[in-house]
Amino acid sequence: MYRPPQDYFPFDTKTLCHHLAQIDAVATYLSTPSETWRAEEVGDGNLNLVFIIKSEKKSLIAKQALPYVRLVGESWPLPLSRAYFEHEALCRHNDITPHLTPAILHYDHEKALIIMEHLTPHIILRKGLISGVQYPLLADHMGHFLAESLFNTSDLALDGQTKKMSVALFSENHVMSGLTEQVIFDDPYFDAELNRHTSPELDDFVNNIRSDNALKKAIQELKTIFMNKPESLLHGDLHTGSVMVTQEDTRIIDPEFAFYGPMGFDIGAFMTNLLLSYFSQKGHEEKQGARDAYGEWLLETVLKTYAIFEAEFSILWRERRLGSLYPETLFENDNKVACEQALTSYLRSIMVDALGFTGAKMIRRILGIAHVEDLETIENQTLRATCEKRALDLARILILDRKSINGFDDVVRMAREINS
Amino acid sequence: MYRPPQDYFPFDTKTLCHHLAQIDAVATYLSTPSETWRAEEVGDGNLNLVFIIKSEKKSLIAKQALPYVRLVGESWPLPLSRAYFEHEALCRHNDITPHLTPAILHYDHEKALIIMEHLTPHIILRKGLISGVQYPLLADHMGHFLAESLFNTSDLALDGQTKKMSVALFSENHVMSGLTEQVIFDDPYFDAELNRHTSPELDDFVNNIRSDNALKKAIQELKTIFMNKPESLLHGDLHTGSVMVTQEDTRIIDPEFAFYGPMGFDIGAFMTNLLLSYFSQKGHEEKQGARDAYGEWLLETVLKTYAIFEAEFSILWRERRLGSLYPETLFENDNKVACEQALTSYLRSIMVDALGFTGAKMIRRILGIAHVEDLETIENQTLRATCEKRALDLARILILDRKSINGFDDVVRMAREINS
Repeated sequence: MYRPPQDYFPFDTKTLCHHLAQIDAVATYLSTPSETWRAEEVGDGNLNLVFIIKSEKKSLIAKQALPYVRLVGESWPLPLSRAYFEHEALCRHNDITPHLTPAILHYDHEKALIIMEHLTPHIILRKGLISGVQYPLLADHMGHFLAESLFNTSDLALDGQTKKMSVALFSENHVMSGLTEQVIFDDPYFDAELNRHTSPELDDFVNNIRSDNALKKAIQELKTIFMNKPESLLHGDLHTGSVMVTQEDTRIIDPEFAFYGPMGFDIGAFMTNLLLSYFSQKGHEEKQGARDAYGEWLLETVLKTYAIFEAEFSILWRERRLGSLYPETLFENDNKVACEQALTSYLRSIMVDALGFTGAKMIRRILGIAHVEDLETIENQTLRATCEKRALDLARILILDRKSINGFDDVVRMAREINS
Repeated sequence: MYRPPQDYFPFDTKTLCHHLAQIDAVATYLSTPSETWRAEEVGDGNLNLVFIIKSEKKSLIAKQALPYVRLVGESWPLPLSRAYFEHEALCRHNDITPHLTPAILHYDHEKALIIMEHLTPHIILRKGLISGVQYPLLADHMGHFLAESLFNTSDLALDGQTKKMSVALFSENHVMSGLTEQVIFDDPYFDAELNRHTSPELDDFVNNIRSDNALKKAIQELKTIFMNKPESLLHGDLHTGSVMVTQEDTRIIDPEFAFYGPMGFDIGAFMTNLLLSYFSQKGHEEKQGARDAYGEWLLETVLKTYAIFEAEFSILWRERRLGSLYPETLFENDNKVACEQALTSYLRSIMVDALGFTGAKMIRRILGIAHVEDLETIENQTLRATCEKRALDLARILILDRKSINGFDDVVRMAREINS
């Protein structure tokens, strides 16, 4: 059960070092006297303060929630509770996939402050993608994270009580999921105040979708699934800015939007960002075709991430299905056919959701409040609009036709066709 | 947030009157001195103590939860918290449809005791159906209750925070929903200890469904929807034993299984019990055909209940859709077509769920732990088995073909055909 902090104030570099010096775990970790520590505020996100604290020997990250949206200011309040839910989700992810999440040193509830491992020399995946860097293990790691985190927090792995109490807890993160509901499923489809788009190039597309009844119905069906399908504990914001990478390592950070929702939502979030990066490549070419091979690597990463997810999810289904759903008593006892038949259907329902959410998130990143750097950094507006239109065309198909698309093979084929 | 009672003991008639005398609302209601009150324990359900307390002028009902299943004894514990959730659900139903629920006088949390209006001369609907009594307003009332209670507790009517906090609260009623999950979706499909069926007549059917992979997959899909679709606050146990009737009046009682689940579950529960009553009619005939007209009335009640539900739900959709889903900004602003298009799809998804749950509940009432009096009171075992087999045949079709059945018109047509 969440309770609000009673003694909160936002830190600056000085008050933070003073505060951290009193925390044994931090002092031990940084190992030199606190007078030698240096703190720097490096937050470039929209919401929080992020500090790096360095001693002569080691460094760590302190992330503090602010009671409002940093990007906008105090006029847009946002609850400190998100730090609590982020920490709760990080702890669960740490239990399930410790090698894919940052180590947590300390959580200070009264200050809405999470102290964690400083991932270095990691960079934000999105920056790597914009620079055209390939990460050979990325698909393996992301597919693995998705399978493990989604399976192990669902009714397939948990008993009824544990699952329902977990749903109840994360229901309290409703301001964050409410924000998602608004900015993904509502705002892009009407003239919401904070929307923006490349104008006038995309004006027609914008006008069209706002009178497209079938599309608006489909997007509200996806919103219904988002709000009424608490299948697994989701990261809730799994774009390429929530992943830190090196050539060998991948870490998933920032689950402050964590809540119980449909498995396909996290999968779709990651796929969206790979596909938007794909469509942005022609905007970053120094000469024609220079980024073609990189674009193909991005599409392969889409396919491989899903293939790994599906393969690992299937292994978990067969070997660790100890929760309330599809109990062994009904399936394994007789034969393995029933188990495989049920798995096939279950994977299909994940796929259909994932395809729909991929489309929904592509549209919101081009027409809603929050855009992606991959496209925003294309300075030539005509060129950017061309890239964006291609992404929007694919997105619309994914939302409307998700039930008749086989899978990401089809998506990749369509993406190539649209982009050529 | 639920907290366990600290000072519980089960009442007998004497300690109950003593206790009630100290409650102002009760003393005022019964109006004569407490020495003149008479209490009688009348509980004939499986779980609780139910007392009628009468003064010379008035009477009321006191329902007290026991910490175990009354039918089985202390070896099967069941939490007192169900009284808390029953009271919470009754309050919500009272707000939404006060004319269709008993008035609540008092809730005593420490004693897991709900004091409510004594409905008289009402009888339990199931008893009326077994006696062959028609209730001309039943379909109107039930359709209205379903539409109002399901719509008004959903994201179609509520803001995100209210809905999510309500889901969180009722998640704590997990022992009761866990019981439902077990006895409806798991036990009938394997050799569970407490199952029973008319033997040897139904042995073949039982053996067949336990090796029917498609049916077991379908039943677990329905269980997944039950557990992972918190669309509305459900009554959770809306059979004909949870409805009290006169010719003019209908009241829905006993929502101790209340939780957030799919709208189709409550609809299916009621339909199941009408259909089981329909299939039981031939077992209660004094001469052939004597109950044919009554059977037709039951089928008409199925159709009319759904028609009223759909009509009233549609009005609520058009006029009181003020929640998070399908917001006006996306629909009504342009034209009414989009609103109707979305309503049609939404109703279809409710229908598909309702059809599946109807089938699931028919099977569990014939092969699981808890049977229905409508069929159980058929003394001729061969005749009872014939009635049961017909119900099972329809049930299997509903579960497997729910996505390709248009609606309850089809169900009624099939029921007639199977029964002839």
